[in-house]
Amino acid sequence: MVTRSDFLQEPVKHIKIDGALSVDQLIQQFRNSGSFGAGRLSVACDIYERMVRDKDCTVFLALAGAVVPAGMRSLITDLIRKRLVDVVVSTGANMVHDSIEALGGHHYKGHWLVDDYLLYKYHIYRIYDIFVPEEDFVKLDYKLAGIFDEIADEKAGKSLSSNEFTFELGKRSSDHNSILRAAYESGVPVFLPAVRDSEFGFAHWLHASRKNVKHTLSVDAFKDLPELVDMCKRSARNGMMVIGGGVPRNSIQSAALASKKGMDYAVIITMDRPEPGGLSGSTLEETVSWGKVKGEADKVIVISDAMIVFPIIVASVVERLGEGYKRRNLKTENLGESKGGA
Amino acid sequence: MVTRSDFLQEPVKHIKIDGALSVDQLIQQFRNSGSFGAGRLSVACDIYERMVRDKDCTVFLALAGAVVPAGMRSLITDLIRKRLVDVVVSTGANMVHDSIEALGGHHYKGHWLVDDYLLYKYHIYRIYDIFVPEEDFVKLDYKLAGIFDEIADEKAGKSLSSNEFTFELGKRSSDHNSILRAAYESGVPVFLPAVRDSEFGFAHWLHASRKNVKHTLSVDAFKDLPELVDMCKRSARNGMMVIGGGVPRNSIQSAALASKKGMDYAVIITMDRPEPGGLSGSTLEETVSWGKVKGEADKVIVISDAMIVFPIIVASVVERLGEGYKRRNLKTENLGESKGGA
Amino acid sequence: MVTRSDFLQEPVKHIKIDGALSVDQLIQQFRNSGSFGAGRLSVACDIYERMVRDKDCTVFLALAGAVVPAGMRSLITDLIRKRLVDVVVSTGANMVHDSIEALGGHHYKGHWLVDDYLLYKYHIYRIYDIFVPEEDFVKLDYKLAGIFDEIADEKAGKSLSSNEFTFELGKRSSDHNSILRAAYESGVPVFLPAVRDSEFGFAHWLHASRKNVKHTLSVDAFKDLPELVDMCKRSARNGMMVIGGGVPRNSIQSAALASKKGMDYAVIITMDRPEPGGLSGSTLEETVSWGKVKGEADKVIVISDAMIVFPIIVASVVERLGEGYKRRNLKTENLGESKGGA
Amino acid sequence: MVTRSDFLQEPVKHIKIDGALSVDQLIQQFRNSGSFGAGRLSVACDIYERMVRDKDCTVFLALAGAVVPAGMRSLITDLIRKRLVDVVVSTGANMVHDSIEALGGHHYKGHWLVDDYLLYKYHIYRIYDIFVPEEDFVKLDYKLAGIFDEIADEKAGKSLSSNEFTFELGKRSSDHNSILRAAYESGVPVFLPAVRDSEFGFAHWLHASRKNVKHTLSVDAFKDLPELVDMCKRSARNGMMVIGGGVPRNSIQSAALASKKGMDYAVIITMDRPEPGGLSGSTLEETVSWGKVKGEADKVIVISDAMIVFPIIVASVVERLGEGYKRRNLKTENLGESKGGA
Repeated sequence: MVTRSDFLQEPVKHIKIDGALSVDQLIQQFRNSGSFGAGRLSVACDIYERMVRDKDCTVFLALAGAVVPAGMRSLITDLIRKRLVDVVVSTGANMVHDSIEALGGHHYKGHWLVDDYLLYKYHIYRIYDIFVPEEDFVKLDYKLAGIFDEIADEKAGKSLSSNEFTFELGKRSSDHNSILRAAYESGVPVFLPAVRDSEFGFAHWLHASRKNVKHTLSVDAFKDLPELVDMCKRSARNGMMVIGGGVPRNSIQSAALASKKGMDYAVIITMDRPEPGGLSGSTLEETVSWGKVKGEADKVIVISDAMIVFPIIVASVVERLGEGYKRRNLKTENLGESKGGA
Repeated sequence: MVTRSDFLQEPVKHIKIDGALSVDQLIQQFRNSGSFGAGRLSVACDIYERMVRDKDCTVFLALAGAVVPAGMRSLITDLIRKRLVDVVVSTGANMVHDSIEALGGHHYKGHWLVDDYLLYKYHIYRIYDIFVPEEDFVKLDYKLAGIFDEIADEKAGKSLSSNEFTFELGKRSSDHNSILRAAYESGVPVFLPAVRDSEFGFAHWLHASRKNVKHTLSVDAFKDLPELVDMCKRSARNGMMVIGGGVPRNSIQSAALASKKGMDYAVIITMDRPEPGGLSGSTLEETVSWGKVKGEADKVIVISDAMIVFPIIVASVVERLGEGYKRRNLKTENLGESKGGA
Repeated sequence: MVTRSDFLQEPVKHIKIDGALSVDQLIQQFRNSGSFGAGRLSVACDIYERMVRDKDCTVFLALAGAVVPAGMRSLITDLIRKRLVDVVVSTGANMVHDSIEALGGHHYKGHWLVDDYLLYKYHIYRIYDIFVPEEDFVKLDYKLAGIFDEIADEKAGKSLSSNEFTFELGKRSSDHNSILRAAYESGVPVFLPAVRDSEFGFAHWLHASRKNVKHTLSVDAFKDLPELVDMCKRSARNGMMVIGGGVPRNSIQSAALASKKGMDYAVIITMDRPEPGGLSGSTLEETVSWGKVKGEADKVIVISDAMIVFPIIVASVVERLGEGYKRRNLKTENLGESKGGA
Repeated sequence: MVTRSDFLQEPVKHIKIDGALSVDQLIQQFRNSGSFGAGRLSVACDIYERMVRDKDCTVFLALAGAVVPAGMRSLITDLIRKRLVDVVVSTGANMVHDSIEALGGHHYKGHWLVDDYLLYKYHIYRIYDIFVPEEDFVKLDYKLAGIFDEIADEKAGKSLSSNEFTFELGKRSSDHNSILRAAYESGVPVFLPAVRDSEFGFAHWLHASRKNVKHTLSVDAFKDLPELVDMCKRSARNGMMVIGGGVPRNSIQSAALASKKGMDYAVIITMDRPEPGGLSGSTLEETVSWGKVKGEADKVIVISDAMIVFPIIVASVVERLGEGYKRRNLKTENLGESKGGA
C-alpha cells in the first residue's frame, strides 16, 4: 500500500551555476531538480542514453517540422553515421531540404516580421524565420527530374517503396553532410510515408510529364509499411525518438502496433497539446491503450521547441558516451542493400 | 498617408445576451465586438460564406486530427451533399473511422483520465476522451481486405491515385451517412495523400499477404498530385477550409502553389503555434511568401479546438444561406466519374 | 469492478446542422458528440446552469485577461444585474477599462500586424488587435485622482479593502452599463487583489503626490482576504467561473482553501497548459490535492480563447433559464452596504 | 531600399556535436543556426549578457510561476549576490516557497499522474509534478504570524510598501540560500505587488485575528509603485528578464511606462501565446506601442518552459563572464537600507 511518506521521498535540489558547465553537467542538475520541463528533459536524455546503449534495440527517429532548414542537418547526419539512429521516418520536406543543400543551396537566417508579399515578389520562401530562395527549389526540381528518369529506367517499371526511393537518392548523392547520403552509407533506411506531400511530388510531376519519357518512376504508397513493421518485429527491443508529430510519429507507432511489439523506449518532443485530440499532441499514456508503446516502457514527452531540446539531448548523450563512440560497425553497403535496398 | 484617426475608426461594441440567440446572431455580435478569437471566428464565418456563395470557387476541405471520431462525420457528409465543399483532402485515419461507422462500428464517449493499461488489456483504443473497441478495427481490416481483392481484380494491376482509391470505397458503401459514400454520390473527390499512414495500410498488408491473391491493389504515391493541381488550375478561384494542419493542409497549399493560382480564400482552424516553425502552425502571412495563398486573399486563422468552432462556422453559414440551400446541382454519377473516377 | 462494457456505453452522436440553430441547440449537440473541446464546453454550460440554479451557491467570477476591452463589458454587467454572479474577482486593468468607457472613452477594433512604433508616436496603445488612445487613460487618471481625493477625505485616513475601494467607485459612477456601477447597485462585491498593478496605481500616485492633499487614499493590501474567505465560509455551496488565470483565479481558490469549504462547482476557461507548472494552467485535478476544489465537485476546464466560449456559455444558459430570469431579488443598496460596503 | 539580396545574407549553419560541449558552446551553435527557438534562445543570452555588462543598467527580474518550488531558488539567490539582478518583482507565492525552505521545509519530486484525492487525504499539495506537505505551510503560517507581530510592533501602525515588507523578512532570515536573505544582504529590493495573493495573506489573517495583538501589520497596496517607478527613472538604462507573465511582468512594464523611460533591454520567457489577448502572452512589439519597451530596445521572447531555458541563459552568461565575476560591489547594508529599507 502507498503510504504518505512514499510521496515525500526525494526533495527538489536547487540548481547551482557557479562557473562554466558542460551540457550534461547542467542536465544532471535538471535531474536533481526534477521538475516541469527540466525534469522531463533530463529523463529524455536518460532514456535516449539507455536506448543507444542497448545494442539489441532498433532506434527509430521521426522527423516532422522544419528540422533540416532550421539547422539540424549535420546533427542528424552524424547520428546516422554513429548509428545512434537505426531507422529514419521523415516528412518528405526534410529530405527535400537536405537535397537542396546537397546541391549547394542554402537556408538563410531571416525574420518572422517581414513583408511576405515583398518576399513573394522577390521569389523568397519563408519558413518562420528562415528564408529559402525559390531558385534553389527550381534547381532541385530539374536535378531530381533527371534522377527520376534515371531511376525509372533502371527499375523499368518496378514500383519502389519510399525507403527504396530514398536509398536511390542517397546512392546518387556525393555530399558527405547529406542525411540521405549518410543513411545510404550507413545502412539506415529512410522512410517517407507521405513522400508525395513535398517538392518530390512536384519534381515527379515534372519528370512524368516530360515527352519521350520511357519509364515513369513509380513509388508504391503501401510498399514501405510491411518493411517498417518487419523491422519492429525482428528487433528484440524498439525505441523511438520523435521530433514533432504527424505522419512520421504515426507511422512508427503503427508499425509498433502492427508488429505486436510495442515500443520499449519512447521520447517525444512536441509543442502540441493533447486536449484537441490530434495524434501529434496525444500523450504517451494514450499510446499504451493501443499497444503502440508498452505500459512498462521507458517514456517521456518533452513539451518544447525541438530546436532547443533535441541538440541538448544529443549533446548530453554524446558527452556521456565519450568521444569517438560508434554504436555499430557495419559493412554499410551490405546492410544498406539488405535493409533499404532493392 | 495613414493618420492617427485611421486607427480609431470603429469602437468595440459590447456583447449583449438577453435571451435565446441563434448561432449566427451570436456571431454577428462577435463581429461587432471584433476582438481576439471572437473577431477571428466572425471573419472565418464571413469568408466561408463568401467562398460558398462564389460558384466559381472550388472549395477544398482539409481534415486532420480525429475529426470523424469526435462527431463531425454527419456534418461533413452534409457539407458534401450540399456541395458546400468540392474537394476533400484528409488523413487516412478519418476515412478509416468513417468506414468503421459504415460497418456498424461506433466511437464511444470516454475520458482522458483513465488507466490506459486497463484499456489495453480490454482491447479498447483511446483517442483523448473517445474509446474505440479494437474489434471494430479488426472487422474493418477483414472487410477492407476483401474489398481490396475485388478492386485489385477489377483494375488488374493498374495503379490508382488516392482519390480513385476512395472513389472505389465510396462506390462500395451503402451507408448514406458515410463521408466516402456522400463524396462518391456528389462527385466530390477525396484525396488521401498519406493513405498508407492509417488502418488502410494495415488492411492492405493483410490483403497483399494473402495466399492465392491474383492481383495486389496498387496505389501510386504520386498519382493524385497532378489531379489536385489541375483542379486548382481549372478553377476561376480557389478556397480552403482547413481543420488542423499536417499533410492535408500542406497538400492543398502545394497544389495552389504548383498551379500558380494561390488560394483566394483561406480559413484555418488550429491550436498549433507558429514559433517552432512547423507547417501546421505557420501563419497565413507566411503562405503568401510562397504564393500558396494570394496576398490579397480573404484569409484568417482561428486559434481554437476545431470541434468547437467548425460546427459554429457551419451553423452560422447554413443559417445565412437558408434552409434547403444546395450550392450545386450536379448529375453526381457523371461528375464523380469524371473528377474522382477511373 | 469495472468491466470492459463499462467503457463502451455511450456512442458519440454526430453533429447535424440542417438549418438555423439556437446556441443552446448547438450545445446540446456538443453534449451528444461529447468529445474534445465540444464535450468540455457542453459540460461547462451544464455546470454553470447548475451553479446558478442552486440558490444556496455563491457564484464567483474571476476576470483575467483583456475581458473588458475585448467586448465583454455588457455581458458581465448583465450577469451581475441578474445576479448570475455573486462576487467578482478581477485584475485591476479590467475595472480600469470599465471606467474608461464609463467616462465616454472607447476601445477600437484594430489589428495585430501593425507598426507599433507608429502607434507609439500616435499615442495609441495596442492590446493584441484592440487600440486604445492614450488620451482616454490620461482623462481617466485625472478623473480618478479627483475621486481618490474625495474618498480619502470621506474616509479620513481609514484603510479600505479592495472591495470597499471598488464599492466607492461604483457609488460615484452614473453609467448604467458599467460593471462597477452594476456591482454597486446589485450588492455584488468586486475584489481587486492586485489593485495597484493597473492604471489605478498610477492614478493613485497622481493623487498622492498632489500638493495640499489632506488625506491620502489608503487601500490595505491584506484587508480583502478575510472578507473573501468569509463569503466562502458562509455559503452552503460555492462555485467559480474563471476566465483566464493569474491572481483572480488564485485568490478565489485560496479563499476556498482557507475557508475549508472547497469549491462545489468550477468552470475554468484558459489557453494555458499545465506542464510548465504555473497556476494559470494547472488542472482542476491538481486543485483537489490542495482542497481548493472538492474531489466530488462538478468541474471542467475548457481549453479555449474565452472571448469565444464565455459568451457561448452565457448564451446557452440564458436560453435555458428563459427570458427575464433573475436569480436573486435583493434590496441592492442594503446588500451592497453589508457585503461590499463600508 | 531593401533589395532581394538583403534577405539572403547569412546562411543557417548546421549544428555539429562531436564531443562534450559547454553550455555556451552549444549556445554559440544556436546563434549560428539562428532559427526558431534556438535562435531566440541565443539572442536571449546575448541580451542578458549586454544587460549585465552595462553597469548603468538596472536589471529587473520578474518571477511568476512556480520558479522556486521547481528548483531555481539557489540560482536566483546567486544572481542576486553577484548582482546580476538589481531588483526582483515576484508573485507572493515564490517568496512563500523561499520561506518554506528557509524554515527547513522541502519541495518533493512527484508526478503529474497521481490520485489527487489521495494526496488531499494525505495533506500533500501538488504543483504539477512537485509535492509539498501541508505541514510545511502550517509551520510557516505560525512562524510568519509571529514575525508579523514583531514587525507590526516595530513599525507601530506605519504602513509598509511590499518591498519594505520583504526587507523585514530578509532581515529576520538566517538562511544563506534564501532569496529574501540574499536580497536583503545585497541591497536588492523584492517587490510583491500582489503580496496578499499567497500564503502571506493567510499568515497575515492569522496574525491579525489573534487576541491581544497590539498592532496589525499594515502593507499599503499602492506604496511600492512610486518606488519602482523611481528606480526606472533614476537609471540611465533599464532591462528586464521576465520569467512568466502576470503581475510581475505587468508591474515592471508599467513602471517603465510611468517613468517615461521604456525598457532598453528585454528578455521574456513564456509559454503563453498572444492571440487570446492576455498580458502574459503579449508580444514585445505590442509593448512598444505603449512605451513600456523602447522601439529600438534589445528584445526577445523565448517560447519555452522557463525551467529549461532560464538556467541555460544563466549558465551561458556566467560562462562568458568568467568565474568569480561580481557585477557590483556594494556595501550591502547601506544600499539595502536606502533602496528597499525603511
